[in-house]
Amino acid sequence: MKKVILLLLSIGLSINVYAQSEDEQQLKKIYDLALTDSKAYDWLNYLSNQIGGRLSGSVQAQLAVDYTKKQLDSLGLDRVYLQPVMVPKWVRGTPEFAYFETSPGLSTNVPICALGGSVATPLGGLKAEVIEVQGVEDLERLGNGKIEGKIVFYNRPMDPTLISTFASYTGCVDQRYSGAEEAAKYGAVGVIVRSMNLRLDDYPHTGSMGYGNTPVSERIPAAAISTKGAELLSTTLKLNADIQFYFKQNCKQFDDVESFNVIGEIKGSEFPNEIMVVGGHLDSWDLGDGSHDDGAGCVQSMDVLRLLKKTGYKPKRTIRAVLFMNEENGLRGGNKYAEVASNKKENHVFALESDAGGFTPRGFSFDCSEENLKQVHSWKGLFEPYYIHLFEKGYSGADIRPLKNSDMVLAGLRPDSQRYFVHHHAENDTFEHVNKRELELGAASMASLVYLFDKYGIVK
Amino acid sequence: MKKVILLLLSIGLSINVYAQSEDEQQLKKIYDLALTDSKAYDWLNYLSNQIGGRLSGSVQAQLAVDYTKKQLDSLGLDRVYLQPVMVPKWVRGTPEFAYFETSPGLSTNVPICALGGSVATPLGGLKAEVIEVQGVEDLERLGNGKIEGKIVFYNRPMDPTLISTFASYTGCVDQRYSGAEEAAKYGAVGVIVRSMNLRLDDYPHTGSMGYGNTPVSERIPAAAISTKGAELLSTTLKLNADIQFYFKQNCKQFDDVESFNVIGEIKGSEFPNEIMVVGGHLDSWDLGDGSHDDGAGCVQSMDVLRLLKKTGYKPKRTIRAVLFMNEENGLRGGNKYAEVASNKKENHVFALESDAGGFTPRGFSFDCSEENLKQVHSWKGLFEPYYIHLFEKGYSGADIRPLKNSDMVLAGLRPDSQRYFVHHHAENDTFEHVNKRELELGAASMASLVYLFDKYGIVK
Repeated sequence: MKKVILLLLSIGLSINVYAQSEDEQQLKKIYDLALTDSKAYDWLNYLSNQIGGRLSGSVQAQLAVDYTKKQLDSLGLDRVYLQPVMVPKWVRGTPEFAYFETSPGLSTNVPICALGGSVATPLGGLKAEVIEVQGVEDLERLGNGKIEGKIVFYNRPMDPTLISTFASYTGCVDQRYSGAEEAAKYGAVGVIVRSMNLRLDDYPHTGSMGYGNTPVSERIPAAAISTKGAELLSTTLKLNADIQFYFKQNCKQFDDVESFNVIGEIKGSEFPNEIMVVGGHLDSWDLGDGSHDDGAGCVQSMDVLRLLKKTGYKPKRTIRAVLFMNEENGLRGGNKYAEVASNKKENHVFALESDAGGFTPRGFSFDCSEENLKQVHSWKGLFEPYYIHLFEKGYSGADIRPLKNSDMVLAGLRPDSQRYFVHHHAENDTFEHVNKRELELGAASMASLVYLFDKYGIVK
Repeated sequence: MKKVILLLLSIGLSINVYAQSEDEQQLKKIYDLALTDSKAYDWLNYLSNQIGGRLSGSVQAQLAVDYTKKQLDSLGLDRVYLQPVMVPKWVRGTPEFAYFETSPGLSTNVPICALGGSVATPLGGLKAEVIEVQGVEDLERLGNGKIEGKIVFYNRPMDPTLISTFASYTGCVDQRYSGAEEAAKYGAVGVIVRSMNLRLDDYPHTGSMGYGNTPVSERIPAAAISTKGAELLSTTLKLNADIQFYFKQNCKQFDDVESFNVIGEIKGSEFPNEIMVVGGHLDSWDLGDGSHDDGAGCVQSMDVLRLLKKTGYKPKRTIRAVLFMNEENGLRGGNKYAEVASNKKENHVFALESDAGGFTPRGFSFDCSEENLKQVHSWKGLFEPYYIHLFEKGYSGADIRPLKNSDMVLAGLRPDSQRYFVHHHAENDTFEHVNKRELELGAASMASLVYLFDKYGIVK
């Protein structure tokens, strides 16, 4: 008996060693290929510099659909198709303009931009006194008396001591999303929100906001102010609480229009009905060219299919690259994809999203069972040569979350986050801030994780 | 007996838990302070934007000595002083100029720069045929017949598949350092070296080179060509091997001049004779402003002292920030510091250098005993919240290496390396490419390691 056990153990060990070494080789192939023969950077160059910002419903968004479909078509996949989805169409209009007036005729310009989804100011702009708050929770304390007729200035900065800048973002973004809805309840006439940016600079950062159940007639305009503008305004208010703030924006919400998720697929050889998704979102805000958010995630996802094919790997399961439309201001693409999947009773077993910028990858966060996290941890050693070290429980991605069920693994690529919010939703989210190798290492890391889950399946 | 052991164990455990938690708190203090109240970024701004490139022997190098001494003076340290050292003085002269001629009168300009230490071309420039090689090992095979009277073009690119770009650099830099010395042996009249850069762009990257024992009269001029220039030249040579290459540079080596290492010190409270060094190099190349190489390492080292003081920590050992002069083209500062330390019989137990850019820190590499590496590994958990995960055997830093003895721990900060060689020794090593938080996280990581080695000592 002892001998049998020893024999079994030694067979087990040798199989394990062999498998390990096969996996090591496959990962090396993927990374080598990504760093020497990737398409991601060229694709991103086109998306960013030939097309530019791709807000849902815009001409650029449609050009991006056409371009990425064509590129996927050229990869020799088993199927490439468009999935129709109705999306909101919000248009910024002419550039916004703002200043504050310390005394009549003495004004200082500050950089602002309308928040996505905001209503316009009156045609001639809006001028009122300003009340500074540190968040929506301050409103109740102040009450209508102090807020009515004024512009509420939300100025709680992102917490610089959190190492993950996404945690700092999460702690602040309620001001942007709900600030106008909440302030309107107290009679405010407009809101100005400090940009979600850890750096002090002159770029206002847009982003989505909502009015909840506020009747259309009671909606107030909302804009972001650059971090330097916010500091200047706050300092000035301390010296003179009576200053007047003026801003003007003529953004507008139109009727929904048709757009598309772009999908490319490699059919699984053994379990074609088990579907694995790798994706990013194709729409972006309009101020920059959307290179980091989320052109990077799209081209990386496309490259995952290309890299797996080029290394000669034949997936057992069906692998789809999905470029979701309308993550930024509606999530219609993500919801539509999940709805169609549910209607068709498709069996999604795994989904991975890259939507945290094209920076050096550090690892992944997982929304999955403890059992599956253990499975991932057993692969840690394979990723070590590539300095991929984070394998944590956490958030996956907005577009893939609607797919969630208790059996599947949802994952998010975790690039280094220190620079992300310098660019996020701002004019300087542009191609020159993406490093080719960092982008490629991200694509290779994603392809490697997809390979491992495809090969070994999702343990239950 | 068993009870005694249990008791001892439980005391040991509780001490351990307490100590752990004290260390956790101290690291948190250091990181919080670095991210909210660091001086590193302001100091670097001054060094980069008010002073600029600081080549040894230049006015800028002297201004940097004066400035950093003054800043250290303001920190209330126990001692701040200058350590005199004679340094080489090489001056680039007027901007270099190069083109290749495919037929008489039909020429294409390419971006070049003289390598540091190179001789000038003749006054009117140098024009000759070009022979492309992949490294010095090709020269012997080609022999005098193919090389004599020509310009040797070293075009071996950095290996993109290595994840650490420093490994790629190490695999290429012999072309730059020894290329001229070796080519001269075969009668070459000049050398052009592909820039040490993984990206294709238009910046030539300088760096030191040497002539070995080549007599002065036989030294040939050496220049770096941008990676795009190298690709263009190589492609053109394939079409037409007879093209003429012209370049002109009037750089010059002067007599050595006096300069200084800048040193700030906190006296140890328990073991003042055990010295711990944290440093970077104050000199830089002249093309950019030397922000990443190595302004970052200098201001981080200065900030280590400041952060430790500000958190209220009283070091047991003497901690010195040393800003070394002349790392780039002579290492005179590092050698002088070690020489003085040896003459004074100073007992250096630890040295840490930051000279790999101001990017997001990933960890440290250690030149030390297995025992000491184990000691470091026991602290891994403390660094995990800050995403510091690399604790490997490896290179420390050029300036601290002359201190090496078998009892001490030498360490190097390991920032993310993907972007480093885009900027290294080139015109675009400038302040705007340094991210404030990344720089600060590096300083905090260094301060944390210094704190731990100071508190627990160097195990033997």
